[in-house]
Amino acid sequence: MSLNTMKALQIVGERQAQIVRLPIPEPGPGQVLVKVTAVTTCPQWDLHIYYGKPMFTHQASVPFPYPAGQPGHEMTGTVAKLGDGCSRFRIGQTVSAWKDPGHSEPGCYAEYVLIREPFLLAVPETLHFTQVASLELAMCVGASVMKLKQMTPIAGKECAVNGLGPAGLIALQMLLAEGAARVTGIDPNPERRELAQQLGAERAYAPGAEEIVPRGGEGAFEIAIDCVGYADAVRYIMDHTTETVALFAVQREDYVLNHKSLTVIGYPGHHREAAEYALGLITDGKLKLAPLATVQLPLEQYDRAVELLRSQQAVKVCFVPGMR
Amino acid sequence: MSLNTMKALQIVGERQAQIVRLPIPEPGPGQVLVKVTAVTTCPQWDLHIYYGKPMFTHQASVPFPYPAGQPGHEMTGTVAKLGDGCSRFRIGQTVSAWKDPGHSEPGCYAEYVLIREPFLLAVPETLHFTQVASLELAMCVGASVMKLKQMTPIAGKECAVNGLGPAGLIALQMLLAEGAARVTGIDPNPERRELAQQLGAERAYAPGAEEIVPRGGEGAFEIAIDCVGYADAVRYIMDHTTETVALFAVQREDYVLNHKSLTVIGYPGHHREAAEYALGLITDGKLKLAPLATVQLPLEQYDRAVELLRSQQAVKVCFVPGMR
Repeated sequence: MSLNTMKALQIVGERQAQIVRLPIPEPGPGQVLVKVTAVTTCPQWDLHIYYGKPMFTHQASVPFPYPAGQPGHEMTGTVAKLGDGCSRFRIGQTVSAWKDPGHSEPGCYAEYVLIREPFLLAVPETLHFTQVASLELAMCVGASVMKLKQMTPIAGKECAVNGLGPAGLIALQMLLAEGAARVTGIDPNPERRELAQQLGAERAYAPGAEEIVPRGGEGAFEIAIDCVGYADAVRYIMDHTTETVALFAVQREDYVLNHKSLTVIGYPGHHREAAEYALGLITDGKLKLAPLATVQLPLEQYDRAVELLRSQQAVKVCFVPGMR
Repeated sequence: MSLNTMKALQIVGERQAQIVRLPIPEPGPGQVLVKVTAVTTCPQWDLHIYYGKPMFTHQASVPFPYPAGQPGHEMTGTVAKLGDGCSRFRIGQTVSAWKDPGHSEPGCYAEYVLIREPFLLAVPETLHFTQVASLELAMCVGASVMKLKQMTPIAGKECAVNGLGPAGLIALQMLLAEGAARVTGIDPNPERRELAQQLGAERAYAPGAEEIVPRGGEGAFEIAIDCVGYADAVRYIMDHTTETVALFAVQREDYVLNHKSLTVIGYPGHHREAAEYALGLITDGKLKLAPLATVQLPLEQYDRAVELLRSQQAVKVCFVPGMR
C-alpha cells in the first residue's frame, strides 16, 4: 500500500459495491482535504443507488459506475491539508460537512475526501464522532424546523412526526427543543417507536392507531412534520393535523390537498444557518445523533450495511474507514 | 303597508326570487335590529343559491324555500333597536356586519335585519355605504392576508392575485397596502383586469399569458393569493409561484400539490381582528370597496342582479332596500 493512496468505496453497478484504491487527492483552491473519521449512511440515498433506483423522479436511471466514495456525504473528520485561499480551519481541526456537494464529485465513503471550505463547519473535538457525522441531515431537518418556527409558534403545540427514520428522529428532538407541548411519533416499526420514546416522544403509534385523533378533533395534532414522503402517508398526516404540516421528505409523487384550512409548508432549501442551528442543539445536548448510528462498520462491509438498512435493523450505519 | 312590516327578498325555489312582506323582527337578548342601508351580493353565494346549487361539497341540495333575506350578509345600516344586554352601540349609529351568522337565520336582503351584537362593527358615518357594505368579505380576505403576513414578509415581494372577482380585487389592494413590490392580477375577463389596474395592480394578464414566468424563474411570483378555487386554476398559480400560495377561494375539489419547496397556506378562519384590519385599511384610504359595487339596484331587481353577476357585467351588485 502506497502512502499516497487511500481506500474508497465504489458502487460500480446494481448491488455491486467494491473497495478501490485511489490516489489521495490534492486540494485545489478553496478545497480542504479531510481525513474521514466517520461517515454515516443516508438510507434513502444508499438504498436507491445500491439497488439501481433513481433518487429523484426527474432521473431516468442511476449512472454506473457511481463516483468513488458516493453516496457518502454525512461526514466528520480532521483537516489534513488546505488548498489555496483556505483560511477558516487549521490542520488537525475537527470538522463536519454540513452540505452535500452533489453526487458528481468523489464522495465521503473513503479515507480522505475533498470538501469545499464553505461546506465545512468546525465541531467541538469533545463530541464523539457519532454525534456530529450526520450534521448534514440535521441541517436539512433544521431548515424545515426553522421555516416552521418562522411561520407558526411551535412552543406549547401538540406535535407529531410522521415516519421515525433518521430524519424523523431528529425532527422530534428539534420540536421538543422548540418547546412543543408534546411530540407523538408515528411509524409502523415498533423498534423505531421505542427509540422515538427514548429520545423524548411522549407517545408513538403505528399509522392508523385509534389514539390518533382526526384533524379538528380534541387532542388532534396541531403541527406535524412528514418524514415519509409517500402520498398515502402524507394524506394520512394531513387528515390528522389541524393547523400546519411541514413536508420534509423528498416528494416522489403528487400529493392531494383537500383540507381548506390546512397550511402545508414546503421544503425551504439548505442553508448554513440551519447547520449552525443544528450544531447548537447538539452542543447544548438537545439533539442526540449518536442513538441513530446504531451500527458501526468498516467500509468493507457496505453490502451488510445496506441489508441492515433495508431490513430496518439499523437506523443509520456509521462507517469508520480507519476501522480494521 | 303596515308600519310594522318590512320588505324582504326570498328565494323560494330555483330561479324564483320574490319580494315578501314580513313583520319587522324584535331584537332578542344580545341582538341588534339594523335598518339596512345597503347590502352587497356575494356572487358565489348568490349564483349558487339562485340556481339551486349547493355552495359546499358536503351539501346535497339547496333547501328551498331559502330563509327570507338570504343569502344577503354583506350589510351596512343604522342601529334601529337594541336587545337586552346590548351596550356597544347607540340608536342611529352606523354599523356594518363583519361576520356572516350562517344561512339558517333571516338574512340581510331586507329593510331590517337582526344581527348579534358581536358581529357588528361601528363604521364612520362619513364613508359612503358602498365603502363599508362589503366589510364581511374584506374581513374574509383580510384573514388570509394577515395569516400570509404572519408567515412570510409581503413587503418587497413580487405578488400575484389569481382571479379578479371581488375577493381578488380586495386581496390585491391589501397586498399593496402591505408593501408588495408589485401585484399582478390574473383573470380571463379583460374588464376585470382593467379594474385591477385601476386599483393598483401593475400588470394584469389572462391565465396562460407568456409574460407569466414559471416558478423558480427570474421575475416569477414569490407570493400569490388564489381567489378562484378550481383545481386547474390552483395548479396554474402553484406552477407560477416560487415561495408561497395562500388559498382564499372555497375549495370544491381536491388540489394536487407537486412542488416540493412551495408553501401553501390554508384559510385560517374568520375573526374580528381581520375585520378591524380591513376597516382600518378602508378608513386609511388603502382599501377601496366602492369600485366593486359597480351597480346599485332595489331588491325588486334581484333577477336582473343575478344575471349581471352571471355574465360578469357587474363585480358586485349593491342593493339599496330603500331605493324606489
